[in-house]
Amino acid sequence: MIIQALVRPGAYYDSVTLMQVASELLKMPGVEDAALWMGTEANKGILAVAGLLTPEVQAAANDDLIIAVKAQDDASAQAALAQVDELLTRRRRRIEQEYRPQSLESAAQMLPDAQWVLVSVAGHYAAGVARQALRLGKNVFLYSDNVSLDDEVALKQTAAERGLLVMGPDCGTAIVNGVGLGFANRVRQGPIGLVAAAGTGLQQVSARLHQLGSGITHALGTGGRDLSQAVGAVTAHQGLDLLSRDPETRVIVLVSKPPSPQVAEELLKAARSAGKPVVVDFIGHAASARQVDNLHFATTLDEAADLAVQLATATPAAQPASDLGLDRFAPGQRYLRGLFSGGTLAYEALLILRDYLPAVYSNAPLGKDYRLADSLVSQAHTIVDLGEDEFTVGRLHPMMDNDLRIRRLQQEADDPEVAVLLLDVVLGYGVHPDPAGELGPAIARARSRAAEAGRYLEVVAVVVGTDEDPQGLDAQVQQLEEAGARVDTSNEAAVRTIGRLLQSLNPTPTRSVQLAKPVNLDVLHQPLAAINVGLESFAASLEAQGAPVIQVDWRPPAGGNEKLMAILERMKMN
Amino acid sequence: MIIQALVRPGAYYDSVTLMQVASELLKMPGVEDAALWMGTEANKGILAVAGLLTPEVQAAANDDLIIAVKAQDDASAQAALAQVDELLTRRRRRIEQEYRPQSLESAAQMLPDAQWVLVSVAGHYAAGVARQALRLGKNVFLYSDNVSLDDEVALKQTAAERGLLVMGPDCGTAIVNGVGLGFANRVRQGPIGLVAAAGTGLQQVSARLHQLGSGITHALGTGGRDLSQAVGAVTAHQGLDLLSRDPETRVIVLVSKPPSPQVAEELLKAARSAGKPVVVDFIGHAASARQVDNLHFATTLDEAADLAVQLATATPAAQPASDLGLDRFAPGQRYLRGLFSGGTLAYEALLILRDYLPAVYSNAPLGKDYRLADSLVSQAHTIVDLGEDEFTVGRLHPMMDNDLRIRRLQQEADDPEVAVLLLDVVLGYGVHPDPAGELGPAIARARSRAAEAGRYLEVVAVVVGTDEDPQGLDAQVQQLEEAGARVDTSNEAAVRTIGRLLQSLNPTPTRSVQLAKPVNLDVLHQPLAAINVGLESFAASLEAQGAPVIQVDWRPPAGGNEKLMAILERMKMN
Repeated sequence: MIIQALVRPGAYYDSVTLMQVASELLKMPGVEDAALWMGTEANKGILAVAGLLTPEVQAAANDDLIIAVKAQDDASAQAALAQVDELLTRRRRRIEQEYRPQSLESAAQMLPDAQWVLVSVAGHYAAGVARQALRLGKNVFLYSDNVSLDDEVALKQTAAERGLLVMGPDCGTAIVNGVGLGFANRVRQGPIGLVAAAGTGLQQVSARLHQLGSGITHALGTGGRDLSQAVGAVTAHQGLDLLSRDPETRVIVLVSKPPSPQVAEELLKAARSAGKPVVVDFIGHAASARQVDNLHFATTLDEAADLAVQLATATPAAQPASDLGLDRFAPGQRYLRGLFSGGTLAYEALLILRDYLPAVYSNAPLGKDYRLADSLVSQAHTIVDLGEDEFTVGRLHPMMDNDLRIRRLQQEADDPEVAVLLLDVVLGYGVHPDPAGELGPAIARARSRAAEAGRYLEVVAVVVGTDEDPQGLDAQVQQLEEAGARVDTSNEAAVRTIGRLLQSLNPTPTRSVQLAKPVNLDVLHQPLAAINVGLESFAASLEAQGAPVIQVDWRPPAGGNEKLMAILERMKMN
Repeated sequence: MIIQALVRPGAYYDSVTLMQVASELLKMPGVEDAALWMGTEANKGILAVAGLLTPEVQAAANDDLIIAVKAQDDASAQAALAQVDELLTRRRRRIEQEYRPQSLESAAQMLPDAQWVLVSVAGHYAAGVARQALRLGKNVFLYSDNVSLDDEVALKQTAAERGLLVMGPDCGTAIVNGVGLGFANRVRQGPIGLVAAAGTGLQQVSARLHQLGSGITHALGTGGRDLSQAVGAVTAHQGLDLLSRDPETRVIVLVSKPPSPQVAEELLKAARSAGKPVVVDFIGHAASARQVDNLHFATTLDEAADLAVQLATATPAAQPASDLGLDRFAPGQRYLRGLFSGGTLAYEALLILRDYLPAVYSNAPLGKDYRLADSLVSQAHTIVDLGEDEFTVGRLHPMMDNDLRIRRLQQEADDPEVAVLLLDVVLGYGVHPDPAGELGPAIARARSRAAEAGRYLEVVAVVVGTDEDPQGLDAQVQQLEEAGARVDTSNEAAVRTIGRLLQSLNPTPTRSVQLAKPVNLDVLHQPLAAINVGLESFAASLEAQGAPVIQVDWRPPAGGNEKLMAILERMKMN
């Protein structure tokens, strides 16, 4: 077996062309293997595994083209290598026979209705092409990978300012107004809109929706890094906003690998104000519940699709016009003080409140940033676990001895910024024989003192007990209610009700990531037309789907000379 | 208003007595507030808030008793303080009128059937009492908190060696054979068994089960630190094992704040082999799915209870006698090699496989410990994302160009340790026009080469596509199946099937935390009898529930002198 190789320094070749030439070579007599690859370390590694690594191949640089052939004899190998130039030239000639614009500008003049530019040139050049597209007022589908993070941040910032979308880099797929961009399954039209960071997440969910008999409005890709801290989910926010405003989209699905926690929080906040159900699959992300208001959390792609179909087919429940009674509170009343005897209940409350409040302090907090400086002094929203070791040295547990809780309750009630007090009341053997008998009067006293000071105090008691408990569940509940407390036997239900109330008392901008300029809905509803720069198969796909498309006969600017490229780029910026 | 205070240095007082004396003082004329607390910093802080902090109180040490009174005048305050000794003595006298054993040993002689010792003395002394109980062959319910981690580890190790349980320290609650220990709701008997680390988690779930009309067999507490790395969930493993063997328990519920990841993994592994449904609520823990075989993941306490009731009432589905066909594989075949073109599919596969395999390596791993040293060389179980940037410089994406995947497929198939190959095949616009046409023959070739070498190769293909895709979903599936691949359109379903197969090919001890000596099931089924050391109300509860109980008239050993205590302890050890 003969191995022969050539190296062509620093010229630009289209990947499709290289793949096609290699497969032509493989058809030649005596040729066993053929590779036309750029001289990257990864490629050299693969050539080594394939037994195609010669010394000259080993010496090739990143920008060099390697042509390597394995053949049964010397003559076959030589013939194959000799054929390469012929094949490359033939292909080049075929392209030149079609009339193709050489620049984005002339392509835009030829197809003025094109709202989109698809970019799939090598990563090295892709940001430049995308910048050009934004300058021309086009939305960008940026398939290319190996684009720097700085370029991504800059591109998305520019796009956001102009009300344009940049899907990607490394965005493999999208479906806009029924037309697939890049890689895309043919999916039935239907009531579900998708925003997904990564390609195959979107494809798996959209294909599944189709298999389940449903379909999509639009599926917007963002690129895998969009939900990182650095990028800040610019595209995901734009996509969510578009689908929120799109009247055809009844349910939104949001899919991503785990985002940065802060970005996730902002995005979920935006999703909460979408005004329609949103299915969230942050794969591997721990949600505090299966459902929080309009958010539905899925743990797998299949489940995300299942949930979306269920939600889209369910008769929309009338939104409960919940009167939170906000006008009962005095100005300045806005904080929660939770005084727990049970550690796990306190912990679950903290976890659930994350869905509603940015920060809750505690002596047993979820994260050290929220640890109370002094367990005896509440700050802002606070949940104290009075059963923690620090409180029980030489003292009975608060489930047995109500003294400490009653003292603290009065202290909190006198704070003019406190709006809500939350207590757990645990019944059963071993605990205080009549907790409501002591806590009830204290609650009534606290509420009336607050009332004298012109304030309204919402007191919520979570009662843990059964109708067979020695204290009598009903009797305890009744005493607490007569004292003016709202009583629930579910910790989760009580905390969610409080969460909604406190959210309304502490209004934050519903969308803290402000969209500089919303993307015009027309981008989803006008017939899609596009300019394609890079992989010709993407243009062929658009044609096959009946969408007008212009292929740019793109070449690296300045012949690939980086210094010259930078100068040209600066000239255009001014 | 007059504040007066006394400090009694270094004497031991029972917390209940102190609470009762304080409430007697509060009934005296002119007394506004009264506190009998140990002189800890926390208590001094609370006294300061209450306006009861005098200079002598400020100077009190941890072991000193503070007696502080707020009264309308000097005479009332003086009268209250004068009353303290009288009240303490009266109470002491009442206790001495009953005959009570002074030691655990004599209590054990009085009630030889007692399987349990309840310990609720101050944390400082609690480990010593628990050690004594273990020496006497008793199980321990250790309510006390402020017990050191070292003591907990040592106690649980001793207990495990002797086939005894130590619930706690800081175990607030348990229900054994219908009798509540410590704090416990009165819960109907039923088919659900509980193991819970912390008190109120167990109480909330068991109360909810009762409210839902169901009930429990037993509810075993472990203490809040049991699921830490240091303790290693000794008690939780014992509890799970007991409930697995208990024929009355049809469903197990496992509740905890987030455990240490390694402990969680071991515990879930044990739960997988429980032979019955297990509902898991590791509050705030991200599960990869809602259900993995017999494990059902809940996100809140309410949901844990709901799920358990559903599972207990559902007709048990016949276990599918799934024939995994293990005998087709040659000895030594055991590893997975996944060759993905889609990053999100690869990521989801890694996440799901965590439920089945201890480690899967990748070029895009879940954690850096599992990063492949060389992306071109697989090790053990490996999933490669061939769409990662490193592979796509100057090369088409693997969804368009099958070359790289076919090369790697052959390489993996030739590895005698490989049992399963997993591929995703993504259809649609923009991708390869006939991926199965190229991958199919490569799969057939790989399988037949393995067969020639005496091996069986399981090839699984996840096909992402719709019946409207240009490639034709059915035709692609058919080609892959004809090549010998198993085809699924769900990534999750395919990966779970593979996971089960690989788990069987790589057997690990089903219970990697070996129980030194299983706890005898009698502890759950014999009528409960107990010895109580500490809070008398716990003895009163047991009596109220009809369980025989002996209260020990416990005093600190060696009058609380630590050096002497240590010497006494060492003498008993020998």
